[in-house]
Amino acid sequence: MREFIPPAARFVDLPVDFPLRRGGTLHGARIAYETVGRLDEDRDNAILILTGLSPDAHAASHPADTAPGWWEEMVGPGKPVDTDRWYVICVNSLGSCKGSTGPASVDPASGDPYGPDFPELSMEDIADAAAHTVRALGVERLACVIGTSMGGMSALSLLARHPGLARSHMNICGAARSLPFSIAVRSLQREAIRFDPQWNRGRYDAERYPQRGMLTARKLGMMTYRSPQEWDSRFGRTRITPERRRDTDPFGPAFEVEGYLECHAHRFSRRFDPNSYLYLSRCMDQFDLGDSCGGTVEDALGRMRLERALVIGVETDLLFPLRQQREIADGLAAGGLDVEFLALDSHQGHDAFLTDTDRFGAPMAKFLAAL
Amino acid sequence: MREFIPPAARFVDLPVDFPLRRGGTLHGARIAYETVGRLDEDRDNAILILTGLSPDAHAASHPADTAPGWWEEMVGPGKPVDTDRWYVICVNSLGSCKGSTGPASVDPASGDPYGPDFPELSMEDIADAAAHTVRALGVERLACVIGTSMGGMSALSLLARHPGLARSHMNICGAARSLPFSIAVRSLQREAIRFDPQWNRGRYDAERYPQRGMLTARKLGMMTYRSPQEWDSRFGRTRITPERRRDTDPFGPAFEVEGYLECHAHRFSRRFDPNSYLYLSRCMDQFDLGDSCGGTVEDALGRMRLERALVIGVETDLLFPLRQQREIADGLAAGGLDVEFLALDSHQGHDAFLTDTDRFGAPMAKFLAAL
Repeated sequence: MREFIPPAARFVDLPVDFPLRRGGTLHGARIAYETVGRLDEDRDNAILILTGLSPDAHAASHPADTAPGWWEEMVGPGKPVDTDRWYVICVNSLGSCKGSTGPASVDPASGDPYGPDFPELSMEDIADAAAHTVRALGVERLACVIGTSMGGMSALSLLARHPGLARSHMNICGAARSLPFSIAVRSLQREAIRFDPQWNRGRYDAERYPQRGMLTARKLGMMTYRSPQEWDSRFGRTRITPERRRDTDPFGPAFEVEGYLECHAHRFSRRFDPNSYLYLSRCMDQFDLGDSCGGTVEDALGRMRLERALVIGVETDLLFPLRQQREIADGLAAGGLDVEFLALDSHQGHDAFLTDTDRFGAPMAKFLAAL
Repeated sequence: MREFIPPAARFVDLPVDFPLRRGGTLHGARIAYETVGRLDEDRDNAILILTGLSPDAHAASHPADTAPGWWEEMVGPGKPVDTDRWYVICVNSLGSCKGSTGPASVDPASGDPYGPDFPELSMEDIADAAAHTVRALGVERLACVIGTSMGGMSALSLLARHPGLARSHMNICGAARSLPFSIAVRSLQREAIRFDPQWNRGRYDAERYPQRGMLTARKLGMMTYRSPQEWDSRFGRTRITPERRRDTDPFGPAFEVEGYLECHAHRFSRRFDPNSYLYLSRCMDQFDLGDSCGGTVEDALGRMRLERALVIGVETDLLFPLRQQREIADGLAAGGLDVEFLALDSHQGHDAFLTDTDRFGAPMAKFLAAL
């Protein structure tokens, strides 16, 4: 169990006792964050970014860490989220392993990592911890909350639980609840980890590590982050050249697409804590904005206290399909909000918001410029 | 390693030495088949059905085996494939474990099952074995070859390699080659089996059996056979009731969709030979009708000697997406054939041809009636 903390991460302490919604209390937990840009005197130019399952708080380069961030094309001076104007706060989710307290962190009660003893995590806990972080930075009213992928879930939860904390919202490839296909994908990913004997019910270390399970989980993830159409043009039926075939098993990787998955999965498998993956994955399944507000998704969306919202989805998204962004946009509009809904014709699937910056950048910049 | 032979299966011997396309020769191999209906005196009313990866030759009930077949709704007296008129031959694919020779069969050279020593299988071998079976039954000219799913691949291969053997063709949710997304799905399914320690490089038995790998492979299959939209309406976010939760692991199945996958996978996992699954799966990846004819897919389709064809696909098919059936239809039409192409608006994904008999039955019946 290991944490992977970006070099310039800073930290906000959560209240000494931080009770979780499904039971259990964290003691002395913290949230990792980074900021880009400057908070102005009125403290009204802050934007919060909530991330997908795996990214850390390093969304973009800045003087303290000049390495490119995970959303480098989108956040920075003169970029769609223009840090010459906006003070951007990016928060690492509670339960992650990138600096915020999670299963890989040390449990002060035992002096050992929590591992499988970490309490059950909910999207509402992630949202509350992010709201606490924002307020601890002296911001009482955000100009905008941007949530991407899983961050689109935690953002909706935050908006519902902390009315008035934000003026506007951008929901990018997000969802107001998990649907059966994505639950099934994540269920299989968790199985790959859980049934890896090296997982050992959550008690592993660097030597005895569920590498095999993480590889399979990540490959399955990649398959749902991209789109079949993109892969047709990118890989077609090209085969791995014999000299590059590492695996002599006749049933092993023979096509470029298999080599690509192998390569990406290897890169990821040692950089994310397997237990953290399990907790965040299950937390996504459990999320239903309606449940969390004691009503339906429509009720919860219809009650949002916001001025404006931009909701973007992609036609080829398998994991967060377009009908889920339409549901968000319709629900917010039913509450009387000024909502713009964009269904982008990108071939890059769920990950289009990371890669297809041309299509996403312009509407995001326009939305923020009009705030 | 076990074979699962339907009670009324009959057998045709392949030539004593049956060389496979990618090397290796089978000695004393056989093909399992069943027939429904009667071959008329002119021997011109025969229809061949080639199946997907897992079905056996028992497509429909008949006096020798009254149990419902895998395509019971579609084949029988008065049904879309009307056995009052047609003599229907359904063949179990070479390499399967349902009566035709495959990795679970006994290798006459050793007296033990072939297991991983079975030679590499190709779609062309499956096609040639089926063509041999048809001729052995005294049929020199089929009225129609119907191929579903993988059978849509072996049917195209048969038509290309045995010109004149069929007058017409029905391609149902098939493909002329495998594309990267489906290759990736099958690659992960194979990994689940190969990395199950019980697989033991293909040397397992009933006690030491790669059950875990088969479960995961089948679940992943189910996810690509159905459609997210169908699951939304079928399962929604319904949870498994606590008394029905068998698994106390907090990351284990909690939603109905997870229970459904678990149940189906358990039903399948002991009824299909894992090695056979690996061979057929890889054989599908390798299939490219163009390669097999020394040109492009378009060339091969354009040269088909047929009178008519019906090509059907489904909008929600993830595994054999609609653009693949359109490719087949366009290619056949370019060769001057009378081709009908139907893109059905079914929510049931790839398996719609098994479940959505209303939508499939009428056009199939109409096509056959006009022959």
